[in-house]
Amino acid sequence: MTSSQNTPPAIRIDSQFDSGNIEVLSVDGATARLAIPHDHMSEFRQWFHFRVSGAAGRELVLKIVDLETSAYPAGWPGYRACVSEDRDFWGRADSEYDAKADGGTLTIRYTPASDLAWFAYFAPYSMERHHDLVSEAAASEGVSYRALGTTLDGQTIDCLELGEGDKQVWLYARQHPGESMAEWWMEGALECLTDPADPIGRALRQRCRFHIVPNCNPDGSRRGHLRTNAVGTNLNREWETPSADKSPEVLAIRNAMDATGVDFAMDVHGDEAIPAVFLAGFEGIPSWTDDLGDKYYRYRAILERRTPDFQTAKGYAVSKPGTANLSMSTNQLAERFGACSMTLEMPFKDNDDLPDAEQGWSPERCQILGRDCLASLLEWLDEGN
Amino acid sequence: MTSSQNTPPAIRIDSQFDSGNIEVLSVDGATARLAIPHDHMSEFRQWFHFRVSGAAGRELVLKIVDLETSAYPAGWPGYRACVSEDRDFWGRADSEYDAKADGGTLTIRYTPASDLAWFAYFAPYSMERHHDLVSEAAASEGVSYRALGTTLDGQTIDCLELGEGDKQVWLYARQHPGESMAEWWMEGALECLTDPADPIGRALRQRCRFHIVPNCNPDGSRRGHLRTNAVGTNLNREWETPSADKSPEVLAIRNAMDATGVDFAMDVHGDEAIPAVFLAGFEGIPSWTDDLGDKYYRYRAILERRTPDFQTAKGYAVSKPGTANLSMSTNQLAERFGACSMTLEMPFKDNDDLPDAEQGWSPERCQILGRDCLASLLEWLDEGN
Amino acid sequence: MTSSQNTPPAIRIDSQFDSGNIEVLSVDGATARLAIPHDHMSEFRQWFHFRVSGAAGRELVLKIVDLETSAYPAGWPGYRACVSEDRDFWGRADSEYDAKADGGTLTIRYTPASDLAWFAYFAPYSMERHHDLVSEAAASEGVSYRALGTTLDGQTIDCLELGEGDKQVWLYARQHPGESMAEWWMEGALECLTDPADPIGRALRQRCRFHIVPNCNPDGSRRGHLRTNAVGTNLNREWETPSADKSPEVLAIRNAMDATGVDFAMDVHGDEAIPAVFLAGFEGIPSWTDDLGDKYYRYRAILERRTPDFQTAKGYAVSKPGTANLSMSTNQLAERFGACSMTLEMPFKDNDDLPDAEQGWSPERCQILGRDCLASLLEWLDEGN
Amino acid sequence: MTSSQNTPPAIRIDSQFDSGNIEVLSVDGATARLAIPHDHMSEFRQWFHFRVSGAAGRELVLKIVDLETSAYPAGWPGYRACVSEDRDFWGRADSEYDAKADGGTLTIRYTPASDLAWFAYFAPYSMERHHDLVSEAAASEGVSYRALGTTLDGQTIDCLELGEGDKQVWLYARQHPGESMAEWWMEGALECLTDPADPIGRALRQRCRFHIVPNCNPDGSRRGHLRTNAVGTNLNREWETPSADKSPEVLAIRNAMDATGVDFAMDVHGDEAIPAVFLAGFEGIPSWTDDLGDKYYRYRAILERRTPDFQTAKGYAVSKPGTANLSMSTNQLAERFGACSMTLEMPFKDNDDLPDAEQGWSPERCQILGRDCLASLLEWLDEGN
Ligand SMILES: [Ca+2]
Ligand SMILES: [Ca+2]
Ligand SMILES: [Ca+2]
Ligand SMILES: [Ca+2]
Repeated sequence: MTSSQNTPPAIRIDSQFDSGNIEVLSVDGATARLAIPHDHMSEFRQWFHFRVSGAAGRELVLKIVDLETSAYPAGWPGYRACVSEDRDFWGRADSEYDAKADGGTLTIRYTPASDLAWFAYFAPYSMERHHDLVSEAAASEGVSYRALGTTLDGQTIDCLELGEGDKQVWLYARQHPGESMAEWWMEGALECLTDPADPIGRALRQRCRFHIVPNCNPDGSRRGHLRTNAVGTNLNREWETPSADKSPEVLAIRNAMDATGVDFAMDVHGDEAIPAVFLAGFEGIPSWTDDLGDKYYRYRAILERRTPDFQTAKGYAVSKPGTANLSMSTNQLAERFGACSMTLEMPFKDNDDLPDAEQGWSPERCQILGRDCLASLLEWLDEGN
Repeated sequence: MTSSQNTPPAIRIDSQFDSGNIEVLSVDGATARLAIPHDHMSEFRQWFHFRVSGAAGRELVLKIVDLETSAYPAGWPGYRACVSEDRDFWGRADSEYDAKADGGTLTIRYTPASDLAWFAYFAPYSMERHHDLVSEAAASEGVSYRALGTTLDGQTIDCLELGEGDKQVWLYARQHPGESMAEWWMEGALECLTDPADPIGRALRQRCRFHIVPNCNPDGSRRGHLRTNAVGTNLNREWETPSADKSPEVLAIRNAMDATGVDFAMDVHGDEAIPAVFLAGFEGIPSWTDDLGDKYYRYRAILERRTPDFQTAKGYAVSKPGTANLSMSTNQLAERFGACSMTLEMPFKDNDDLPDAEQGWSPERCQILGRDCLASLLEWLDEGN
Repeated sequence: MTSSQNTPPAIRIDSQFDSGNIEVLSVDGATARLAIPHDHMSEFRQWFHFRVSGAAGRELVLKIVDLETSAYPAGWPGYRACVSEDRDFWGRADSEYDAKADGGTLTIRYTPASDLAWFAYFAPYSMERHHDLVSEAAASEGVSYRALGTTLDGQTIDCLELGEGDKQVWLYARQHPGESMAEWWMEGALECLTDPADPIGRALRQRCRFHIVPNCNPDGSRRGHLRTNAVGTNLNREWETPSADKSPEVLAIRNAMDATGVDFAMDVHGDEAIPAVFLAGFEGIPSWTDDLGDKYYRYRAILERRTPDFQTAKGYAVSKPGTANLSMSTNQLAERFGACSMTLEMPFKDNDDLPDAEQGWSPERCQILGRDCLASLLEWLDEGN
Repeated sequence: MTSSQNTPPAIRIDSQFDSGNIEVLSVDGATARLAIPHDHMSEFRQWFHFRVSGAAGRELVLKIVDLETSAYPAGWPGYRACVSEDRDFWGRADSEYDAKADGGTLTIRYTPASDLAWFAYFAPYSMERHHDLVSEAAASEGVSYRALGTTLDGQTIDCLELGEGDKQVWLYARQHPGESMAEWWMEGALECLTDPADPIGRALRQRCRFHIVPNCNPDGSRRGHLRTNAVGTNLNREWETPSADKSPEVLAIRNAMDATGVDFAMDVHGDEAIPAVFLAGFEGIPSWTDDLGDKYYRYRAILERRTPDFQTAKGYAVSKPGTANLSMSTNQLAERFGACSMTLEMPFKDNDDLPDAEQGWSPERCQILGRDCLASLLEWLDEGN
């Protein structure tokens, strides 16, 4: 005698969609054991994105294992997984990390109200949304578009250009494709710059010529990679010697920068471990001057003054004089162009100085930060750059 | 001595995105010569979807050639290409077909206001939008979801279920993936059925159990196919003997139908040639009865009475007694279940009885027709089925 | 020593806003005793609309007394009060009627989540929303506007005109201003007629010339009246001998009708007592013919077939031959123009054949019915009128 | 024989709606001669708001005369009238002022595309929108509502309260009801404070207790006044000795302030003449200290740094020591509470440092400034207040 008719069916887990990435090791009822696949032709693995179906009203227990050998094991303690049922609002699910279990296990618990729940390392930003973003921006007054180049999967490197000023400002994001917060930030920045009412955007367009690459790595994005492109290249280690074979994305962007020059550059990223928003500069480049360094420090101070979602206490250690890695874009652009160049890092976790229990760091906060970074740029320019 | 600096740059044409499909033969300034690639492992070719960049304010002249050997050459005379700059509103571009030029050439002329313009055989319906549709529906009161199976590309066959009645109603669309109007129709149908205020949806949910497959062929959809799945199978010729190798989509759906039975079925399609909305039935099945046929004719008459976007004068010739092709779903379901089964065909062109100069047949009209088809179902049921 | 600091403050009740109407007899904590003021210069009283503040999380007990002498005491048994906290979604509050208590008491119980809750006899339709509706419609392709006249409070009688056909169709609403459902219906009707994609609206515009008065009684609307204008006139008893002094609204509309003629007319209303949607015709007019009557019965049958939110079992008794009240618009228009003329009645309560526990009859259902009434008009015309 | 049937009909001008205010002196075809009525029981006149109908495609010539004796004749040179056809987007109409014509004439020229066009001194903010704003804010997490008092027309003085900090911050607007930009500013401020993602709002709510009165003068607002309440009182001259008879609004608000104390106060206004955004302080109050003054100057400097839509070059002359008018709220609150108190002035014209040809100063810019003022408050607090 069995009670099989009373056993709820096992859940199902899928990832065959834009930026989907998971390996299902086993499923038992509403419990699953999962692993994160590597980026293609690369050892990096950290980004996950999958859909669970068939669990309405049941508590899911999702165990992602073997994380001590993931790209950033320090990313898991204190991290809570992102979850959405309507694919619009992304909250956080209760998550717990045990470094000792099963090679390092993140256990996610969540009871969906409906039969479909989407989980991701951070709220995904699909290529379809990317195309919407680029097309809407390109249709705004005074904005032009150009394709800087073509990726190895045949996608375009999309660049939006606007503004009548002479300061050459380059904003670029998602060299590391799993850092989807970077493109959410771009939405906020583009909204500010194309809003006909926003005085920040309007004043910046008088002073600057903007070159905006919302997604430097569409192949990695669509493939569900954390850090690399279609052939496993970490683009942010290619800026000294980009190649058509390994890093056509960087080659295309750097060539375009060579043509315009660069006065100010921001490379937008996410950081797995540090629960804060911070900047990294170009300390240690061969042609470092305190004058140039001060420009960057001044920008950083302005941004810190303007928003409680930015801080300077936490962040990366700086390179010693002469030791900067010129294969990284921020260093390369400071060295190559004398640009005030910087890397913006947003958390996968939260800003622990102003935590949000429901959403943690979120797409909405990325968008707001986008405007605040631009407003800081205007204040910085007004002070005499 | 050249004046090259005064020559506007050549446009660029891309198709590496969801359902993108074009071959660029040559580009000269704002003029391009294009061809439509075959579906993978198939001879069918008719669906196109591409983006043109760099043409703000210039007249594009896009020549798609070699169309006399496309799947439906009769689809080109009188057809106007779909175009969008914001990826939301889809209008029509001036288009002219010359059967004698270059193997059959459709010449599209359009002057975009902005630098990006998207062209397609019909307004595309991406897998991302599909997932939004399915997730939002699944989150509605009283709706459940189940995956009926898995495609050869690893995607799911998504099925939504709702209603407390005993009439088993199956609605399914996009067996032919390039007929994207079929999924726009699904949006309207699902909106009607999940709107807590709509009396049509509410009354139908009391009388019926709905099983809705908004997209039977996600692989073909994503790949930019006209008629086939990932291995070149025309799914609507697989209903007699579906197989896991060639047509797992049909196998999964038909198995699920076997489990529920089918009282009423609608298979939603688009037609390349005929400028009208029409239905095709199951004449010629072995177990034809006039009683069953009358049910179908009665439904058709109700729909004709209810909306000027449906008619019965134009359509397909009917099969002679005993000659119905049972590999097609409509015939198979009528034969297998005694279901009132039908194929809904919407035009790629327009409804010539009520033409719309700006949009032709459009996503918006598909959505409205979705509700009108359901309202007709309710009226049909109320008359005594 | 008292514990007064622990007593929650009394709630506050206000009604000094568009269509506000209540008299506060007493307030004690979260309980209030209320009465409904008469329409100005009239004995009618039934419409209420007020705001309660200061009750977040507390159960309100609102007793509206003396209702046995209200205009329609039969309106209270089975009625549930409309309530909204965001002024967008209108639900229903638990309500109970006791004819014997305090001259007839409706006790409303509701626990608002926030400090502001709005209560009304039906979801209000403000003059501001009216102006939005009229301006948006007037801005649509092919729509013109004219003011038919001026009310005694100096407001305009707004009329929208559209369509290229020769059938003269007049749609008019809110002669009785407290029947706000009538203007919600108008929103749905105007949406259908101005939607460039809707085949119903498009086909009707080919066949008809529409004259639409979304609000015949703006003074009563703004003043919070149930049935009368600024000087206490029941406009729907003025159609035989309208006057500039008592009923300039009717005089203006009837004059405009005289100029165009009327083929089809619908006067949109709400009914206090009957929990159903129904039509009333023009039986008993002097020039009654069965032919004209049949036109009306045929329309009614079509509408009944098309939507479960309409029925013919419940409704008003018909007048005997020769006894029709020609001061009512429906009778007057049938008599005067030989028009197929009718009064549409929607419930303040619900459609008991398809009840909605959460919202009862709602603005959303009014809007949907607006389209279904127009679709029925098209079907009626197509049958040979 | 005349060709009168070819003369287009005269336009019609109406103002019987929320905040409507105009006198029609004469109309001839599409030209009208107009005057601005005084506020009730007051000599102030400057606010106008009216609707023109019947002019689709014709150039309107609207002459508002006798403006040299309006409240602020300096408001007319350089001013362009606000106009909207959809009541959502407010642009500017070509306008020219001739001080010598007809006692001072503003000639507005505009060709509406549709039959209805709305003109106003600034984009109106209706009481209906006010109630939407207040109800939506009150429904937000952690926001409470209280009515501070009742106006002479029986409306409520609505106050929203939020925040867990101990700094008492009062924001209040529309003492002068025709300065509708003040309530648009409030929309932006409330959006910032209630947005669960905005770090500015979130951090401010930790530090402050906000008391927000979006509209101090609902009677004047509804009546279409420029500067006074229902009995002609200029509320911003009542703060020393408010009375229940003349200024119950101020009495209610000041009493509430006495109960909470005030640390920071902003009184939001519009200025007729000066084409800039500026602040006015409390120089000249008896208990002036440079310390308190510096707080205000510091806030002003922060705001100037943060947005190009604020400046300090243009503005009002400051009072000499001991000569401050304590009947004005800003002075009264600084004197009474030692508050850092200020008056924010936005233009009816434009910010001439960053002009917008299409919209001039606009509702959208008011909203953005609302957030920027709050962000400045946070920066000001962080510096050590
Ligand atoms: Ca990174
Ligand atoms: Ca087909
Ligand atoms: Ca009535
Ligand atoms: Ca003022």
